Amino acid sequence: MTSFEIPIASSFRPPAVSDVDVRGFWGERIDAVADRTAMILYDRCVAAGMLDQIDPARPVPAVRMPFHTRADGSPDTVNVQMFWDSDIAKVIETAAYALYRKANPDLEAKTDAIIDMFHRLQQPDGYVNSWFIRMQPGKRWTNLRDCHELYCAGHLMEAAVAYFHATGKRKLLDVMCRYADHIDGVFGPRPGQLPGYCGHEEVELALVRLGRATGGRRYFDLARFFVEQRGQQPHYFDVEAAARGADPKQFRHRTYEYNQSHLPVRQQTKVIGHAVRAMYLYSGMADVATEFGDDSLTDALKILWDDLTTKQMYITGGIGPAASNEGFTDYYDLPNESAYAETCAAVGLTMWASRMLGRGPDRLYADIMEQALYNGALSGLSTDGSRFFYDNPLESRGTHHRWTWHRCPCCPPNIARTVAAIGSYMYAVSAGQVAVHLYGDSTARLDVSGTKLTLTQSTDYPWNGRIAISVGLEKPAAFRLALRVPGWCRRATLFIDGETVDVDAIEERGYLRLDRLWRGGETILLDLPMELRTLRANPAVKADLGRVALGRGPLIYCVEEVDNGSGLNSLILAGDVGNATVTTVEQLGRAVAVEVDAKRERWNGWEGKLYDAAKPMLEKTRSRFVPYHLWDNRAPGEMLVWVRAGE
Amino acid sequence: MTSFEIPIASSFRPPAVSDVDVRGFWGERIDAVADRTAMILYDRCVAAGMLDQIDPARPVPAVRMPFHTRADGSPDTVNVQMFWDSDIAKVIETAAYALYRKANPDLEAKTDAIIDMFHRLQQPDGYVNSWFIRMQPGKRWTNLRDCHELYCAGHLMEAAVAYFHATGKRKLLDVMCRYADHIDGVFGPRPGQLPGYCGHEEVELALVRLGRATGGRRYFDLARFFVEQRGQQPHYFDVEAAARGADPKQFRHRTYEYNQSHLPVRQQTKVIGHAVRAMYLYSGMADVATEFGDDSLTDALKILWDDLTTKQMYITGGIGPAASNEGFTDYYDLPNESAYAETCAAVGLTMWASRMLGRGPDRLYADIMEQALYNGALSGLSTDGSRFFYDNPLESRGTHHRWTWHRCPCCPPNIARTVAAIGSYMYAVSAGQVAVHLYGDSTARLDVSGTKLTLTQSTDYPWNGRIAISVGLEKPAAFRLALRVPGWCRRATLFIDGETVDVDAIEERGYLRLDRLWRGGETILLDLPMELRTLRANPAVKADLGRVALGRGPLIYCVEEVDNGSGLNSLILAGDVGNATVTTVEQLGRAVAVEVDAKRERWNGWEGKLYDAAKPMLEKTRSRFVPYHLWDNRAPGEMLVWVRAGE
Repeated sequence: MTSFEIPIASSFRPPAVSDVDVRGFWGERIDAVADRTAMILYDRCVAAGMLDQIDPARPVPAVRMPFHTRADGSPDTVNVQMFWDSDIAKVIETAAYALYRKANPDLEAKTDAIIDMFHRLQQPDGYVNSWFIRMQPGKRWTNLRDCHELYCAGHLMEAAVAYFHATGKRKLLDVMCRYADHIDGVFGPRPGQLPGYCGHEEVELALVRLGRATGGRRYFDLARFFVEQRGQQPHYFDVEAAARGADPKQFRHRTYEYNQSHLPVRQQTKVIGHAVRAMYLYSGMADVATEFGDDSLTDALKILWDDLTTKQMYITGGIGPAASNEGFTDYYDLPNESAYAETCAAVGLTMWASRMLGRGPDRLYADIMEQALYNGALSGLSTDGSRFFYDNPLESRGTHHRWTWHRCPCCPPNIARTVAAIGSYMYAVSAGQVAVHLYGDSTARLDVSGTKLTLTQSTDYPWNGRIAISVGLEKPAAFRLALRVPGWCRRATLFIDGETVDVDAIEERGYLRLDRLWRGGETILLDLPMELRTLRANPAVKADLGRVALGRGPLIYCVEEVDNGSGLNSLILAGDVGNATVTTVEQLGRAVAVEVDAKRERWNGWEGKLYDAAKPMLEKTRSRFVPYHLWDNRAPGEMLVWVRAGE
Repeated sequence: MTSFEIPIASSFRPPAVSDVDVRGFWGERIDAVADRTAMILYDRCVAAGMLDQIDPARPVPAVRMPFHTRADGSPDTVNVQMFWDSDIAKVIETAAYALYRKANPDLEAKTDAIIDMFHRLQQPDGYVNSWFIRMQPGKRWTNLRDCHELYCAGHLMEAAVAYFHATGKRKLLDVMCRYADHIDGVFGPRPGQLPGYCGHEEVELALVRLGRATGGRRYFDLARFFVEQRGQQPHYFDVEAAARGADPKQFRHRTYEYNQSHLPVRQQTKVIGHAVRAMYLYSGMADVATEFGDDSLTDALKILWDDLTTKQMYITGGIGPAASNEGFTDYYDLPNESAYAETCAAVGLTMWASRMLGRGPDRLYADIMEQALYNGALSGLSTDGSRFFYDNPLESRGTHHRWTWHRCPCCPPNIARTVAAIGSYMYAVSAGQVAVHLYGDSTARLDVSGTKLTLTQSTDYPWNGRIAISVGLEKPAAFRLALRVPGWCRRATLFIDGETVDVDAIEERGYLRLDRLWRGGETILLDLPMELRTLRANPAVKADLGRVALGRGPLIYCVEEVDNGSGLNSLILAGDVGNATVTTVEQLGRAVAVEVDAKRERWNGWEGKLYDAAKPMLEKTRSRFVPYHLWDNRAPGEMLVWVRAGE
């Protein structure tokens, strides 16, 4: 084997969704989205009356469904309708990926019709926002703090890029480029421009995505402006509130920490406030860092990354424990049963992690991306693609189930678009290098320094860790192929065309760097043995004291009542989980379940007693664990991730 | 030994505080109240400006210190000042007991001066309430729901009785009888009377106390009226709100469950709402049941008793886990660190339990009275009598400490008056029977069926369970002496004048019934061995799962950082606590501490890590437990009642 010194650029960008054909584990989930979820989302938007708001041909609907109410019952400033554009945008984005997956003329016609509505809605100056055009005319750009105006624009930009890539149709892309140009004129540092930014971040990352798709670097500049402007003094939201005659102190969420504008972003060191907003901000910051090669911004993000992942993250990758602010509380405050851990927040963490890889492969980020994706995010979608978790607790008494819809319908299309776009999270490409971040049966068509490269993964991942990768090239090319070795894997082995490769010699930051002149036709065999892991939490996490969670490969496991009977908190595992066997659960798509020896406390005899001196009886049992993301897909019942442990 | 059939009446009433001289454990606490707390309470009332409100000779003070504020910052209907009369009343009541304990001319003069203020404040028609006379003239009896008007009257009635018993001075008693007569005219079923009752119960039990002290049976009738009227339809608080032009639905606490007026009291089966209110209501109901021999009311109370003590009570006797309503939540919701468990609520449970004994001795009630008194209530007062807990959590990270005062100063005088009145909780007397409910070094002067009886207890209780009781009589008399055998005691032994008595033959509902012709001069030796108890909670109490608490005699124990180092949750006891020894802690008034073998998880190595597959190391240690009520009397630090337990 020969090694090469290959000049490597350190700006990595993901492939388009349409550049990766996904099979296997994720393929089945994408099929469910294409076959079912995409149309369900459309139908539920129609049922909720959302299209009545967008379509200029229909009567202006009444303001309804107050989302937040004050203590005295009056509606607050925020109403779900003001962010419906964003939800519809994610429905379009999901439809785009579904249409790329499978032709569906009905879905395509319906999506085209929605796009036509936005096209007709667009004002002569390029402005597009159904709430402010139709429901609240004359009020545009007067309350960036509360009204999700740029947030809606951002999601529509993402939808436009996705629909263009999937279908080749430019109409929405053109609409959104015109709108982005309009925004670029309204916002900025020059006299007459507004020095503002959105209370709900999203437009920053969306502008980078739009810029990458269209080559419009001015969108990168605008994204950077929004990022750098955030939290500067005088505070824009104070100035803006005063301008509309409101008392800036009467902010429902009390503190600008809620929307991460309490400080300029480079001075922020604590992950705080509304979880989804935080993740989208950091994603946009990471995108800006990648596009501008700005390591100082990356350094600020590293502090936040450490803060989140070492003090504020559930083992599922869920984040934001509190319902009250849909976000963060104190360090190590990670209650299991009351966990909010919104699906959108885990999706957001997946997004941020993937963007932290924009400066180069690093297990630190890819491991968390995988952890959030396979657990706290994927749990948001039922296996058949028809039901959705909004909050993702790590324990349930049996009353928590996926919704068919939510009055704030952000999570259903968010997890659907993420699942359907999984291919774009699997790889990243820079000049001279291709990184494989996630494994899964798939074929990717990539371009590395001008050469077309096909990478075909054959694997049953995540059920086992054996991955065969074939390299296809139109002509020989020297580049680095970086293969991730997950942190959970203790002994990876690698063969290329049958030859053993010394993995220790070529590992850096958790990636095996294969620097060579590739000729095409090589077969790489990577084995990542999946051992059962007994995981404990930092003892500062009081909710998990004296408890263990089981992990295998990228998956966190849980016990369900359907397998183990009720009273899951009566189960006690040995501190060293012994005699573990794996089985396959047909009812869960041949998922790998784990069975271990356990004890069960007998709980009978407690009727009518609150305290007692009697010692509980223990009996031997065997308990079955299934992947957390699959819970509540069979008979409803209790669920528990952190199981009590003996010594 | 000869047994007699003695006719027993089943209406038991407590002795006056001045009928019992207390020494030993409680004597030291009463001395602290007499020497220190009583004057501290007075001084703090002065410092808070409370007397400025009562004294008609002073300028009317401004309304200040809004207690509750609405979301928009405006003051709500409730202000601390509206219940200051009640707090001052409890300060007077405490001073009464202190003056009975020890002469204190300065305290007596100051208390007489306060009483003079109320005397001068009293209106020609008998009405007395500083808030409505001076701050809100013209609004009396317009908002019984929120304004604590009858509640204030009740506490002043209690103070008047106490001050009369302690000092023989009638001025406040006369004022309050006139006020009670006025109330009796205003409220009632007759035309022109108001069919109302107070949003905060208290006047019901106070009227019974006033009636017992003065022989005024009309006060019993009025108490019964208030009890029976509660929760009847049309709902008085609805009618009252409409009459003052308010929307009845705009009730800050949303539901009348908050003040136990959601249903007529006989239909209530769940202990609900604000904890102190509930306890005071049930106390008043029990008093009415006793005075009217009304077993149907007692039957209703038994259902509520069972509901509270088998589903909603901390092991300390603390009740009301939530700060939001200062009260009850769901069954088995008993979080330890965030426990509200207000001192006043444990005092209230002590009061209710003592009044459930009004229909006869029963361990069911006396055990809980002792449990609440020695643990969740007594913890409210520092050993030196100078500082006060408002909330009594069962776990602390080291930041919870007793206050010198509270903006809602209800708890300090409430626990002080309760400690100082302990003698009246120790006994109850009916025709033909004397019951000893609590043990403690003391001398009681009682009257049983017209004969003067002196009972002298010599004991080191609660530090050990050996009690010698000498019976003193002016002449021989036949009566039943009922001695409680606490439920925590497994093998009581009894000797009378050296002769063994078969306790099993004479025990009923946890009391040893000694029916005989007493001649005086008998010595009773009762031994209640105190074994260490390892207690577990019903597994439905999730906060206590896998944990044990230690109890010895009436005391619940805890670990403190000062004895065991920090990280108390790293301690793990064996399921069977082994090798226990008792020691005496000089710094805590020679309290009995318990030391047991334990293991400690090593927690080093977790810096910067949130989850890990490493198994924790355990090392052997010895841990010291001290009585819960004594915690936070030495070096500040962590505290824990429910300690992790191994198998």
